[in-house]
Amino acid sequence: MARPKIAITIGDPAGVGPEIIAKLLAQGSIFRRCEPVVYGDSKILQRACKLIGVPGDVTRDGLAVGKRAVSVVSPLGKEYSKGRARDGTAWGSVLMMEAVKRAVLDAMEGRVAAVVTCPITKEGIGRAGYAHPGHTEFIQELTGAGRVVMMLAGKRLKVALVTTHASLREAVSMIDEERVFETIEIVWRDFVNKLGYEEPNIAVAGLNPHAGEGGLFGREEEDHILPAVHRARKRGMNVSGPYPPDTVFRRAYNGGFDVVVAMYHDQGLIPLKLVHFDTGVNVTLGLPVVRTSVDHGTAYDIAWKGIARPTSLRSAVNFALDMIRGGARGHR
Amino acid sequence: MARPKIAITIGDPAGVGPEIIAKLLAQGSIFRRCEPVVYGDSKILQRACKLIGVPGDVTRDGLAVGKRAVSVVSPLGKEYSKGRARDGTAWGSVLMMEAVKRAVLDAMEGRVAAVVTCPITKEGIGRAGYAHPGHTEFIQELTGAGRVVMMLAGKRLKVALVTTHASLREAVSMIDEERVFETIEIVWRDFVNKLGYEEPNIAVAGLNPHAGEGGLFGREEEDHILPAVHRARKRGMNVSGPYPPDTVFRRAYNGGFDVVVAMYHDQGLIPLKLVHFDTGVNVTLGLPVVRTSVDHGTAYDIAWKGIARPTSLRSAVNFALDMIRGGARGHR
Repeated sequence: MARPKIAITIGDPAGVGPEIIAKLLAQGSIFRRCEPVVYGDSKILQRACKLIGVPGDVTRDGLAVGKRAVSVVSPLGKEYSKGRARDGTAWGSVLMMEAVKRAVLDAMEGRVAAVVTCPITKEGIGRAGYAHPGHTEFIQELTGAGRVVMMLAGKRLKVALVTTHASLREAVSMIDEERVFETIEIVWRDFVNKLGYEEPNIAVAGLNPHAGEGGLFGREEEDHILPAVHRARKRGMNVSGPYPPDTVFRRAYNGGFDVVVAMYHDQGLIPLKLVHFDTGVNVTLGLPVVRTSVDHGTAYDIAWKGIARPTSLRSAVNFALDMIRGGARGHR
Repeated sequence: MARPKIAITIGDPAGVGPEIIAKLLAQGSIFRRCEPVVYGDSKILQRACKLIGVPGDVTRDGLAVGKRAVSVVSPLGKEYSKGRARDGTAWGSVLMMEAVKRAVLDAMEGRVAAVVTCPITKEGIGRAGYAHPGHTEFIQELTGAGRVVMMLAGKRLKVALVTTHASLREAVSMIDEERVFETIEIVWRDFVNKLGYEEPNIAVAGLNPHAGEGGLFGREEEDHILPAVHRARKRGMNVSGPYPPDTVFRRAYNGGFDVVVAMYHDQGLIPLKLVHFDTGVNVTLGLPVVRTSVDHGTAYDIAWKGIARPTSLRSAVNFALDMIRGGARGHR
């Protein structure tokens, strides 16, 4: 079987993206499973190689990292390749966004099998002239996808979010039957169609302490979440809940569920980052293309010091490969 | 040094309280560190001993568990001791509440050094004729304490809650500077005075994703939490935050902080139960007496089957003993 091409976008070149890509390429093991194509800039990658003490030579098609030839797609054209973009200027922001755009369009056309993204920043999105609130919304628009779902995945715990970047007060107000049902449906569909689960066992968390304890601490469970679970069950999905939030993640971690649908950002991310800090993968469900991402930010404070670890990036590449083969189940 | 007397209340006799007490007594190791005094009913304890296959004989002062004599204080008087209370009747509810009341009053008078409570239920509180929302509020009133703080403690992670049993929507509305400051102050005072920390390192979690990211996802951090942290720092407390909720518990778990002040029930309990499922202790800070509790419920579904484990009860007794000696720090 030919190794699938995996697009890896450089992210904000002033962040840790370039060095974690350089480290991953230098380690070499990913070449056994795929052909990485970096969307970014050869000169910046060369500097990242130098930073970590690995031979990196710019070639006609990209970069030679040690003995390995790596294709680099330069969305800004080669004349730009001066490596200036790592300095946090507007050019870096333009590069990070155009790299994502090119990679996603290539994935839509089948030139690459999946897109794995390195971190960008909200500020950079604006500096590059875009108005999207985040990475995922940008990709959603490029692909013409409807509702998408953010999932954070580790080997033992996977959480999918009904609401994401909203204040807790707003998130509470956003919980309704439709939104919860849609989330369950997208999770179910992608787990069956892309992740290789025959019948995923989906748990839905409650919103309130003790899942409301029969209406004593809030009515969202009875008014919105339970009806959504019933509707999904009627359509044949193997889903249950709402469960008390303080124990459902433990149960999933111990193998009781394949994935937990969490109501808000921190409900899912607190447990995920506690047990899968370095190895979590951000997966966008509901897209027509396979897209995974590291689950950390640009980490400016440690960027270009050569100390950032490629652990999450490697997990993101592996998870994408598993999804392509319909077998992310093995990722557990 | 004389072994301190530790009151252990029986909890709802229809729950797992009697059997976990019987198991703890049968294991024997706690007698090395303390003299347990059970507040409950000898006959019920005898039945629990029989259930788990341990010799238990009713004596004049209580119970002989194997060769060990255990004092039992029977708040309902001996003529009641028919062991009927395990059947979930109103008598059981009365017993569980009067046991707590007697134990707390004895602690106030110095007859016992600490109170360790087994689980009760809200329904039982009502059946016994009381209107308190929970165990802690009942003890708070009995001791005339002002604001108290619920802390969940494991060896590596300790979380103290600003709000507890309220819907998430209500909890968000309850976050204000005063409440956050009071919580920090009670945590600081008890960690210094009772738990043996010279200068506890207290982290305060934000309420919103990314701690609001500068007001982008909610303003509670800037309007309420940060001012409370500043006020506490001005008074000499070693406290910092608000931190992004999705990483602060990980940092505390890795030794970065002694305790995390969490804004709402599940923010603290999700991470605590994920890493300290069986061994967590519920500690009430701010009381004039030392009170700890198991961190599980009555577990009716498995009660009186002999399979409930005394792990959390043993941790609760040990934590209380450490607090009495001003050295719960060693509990880490």
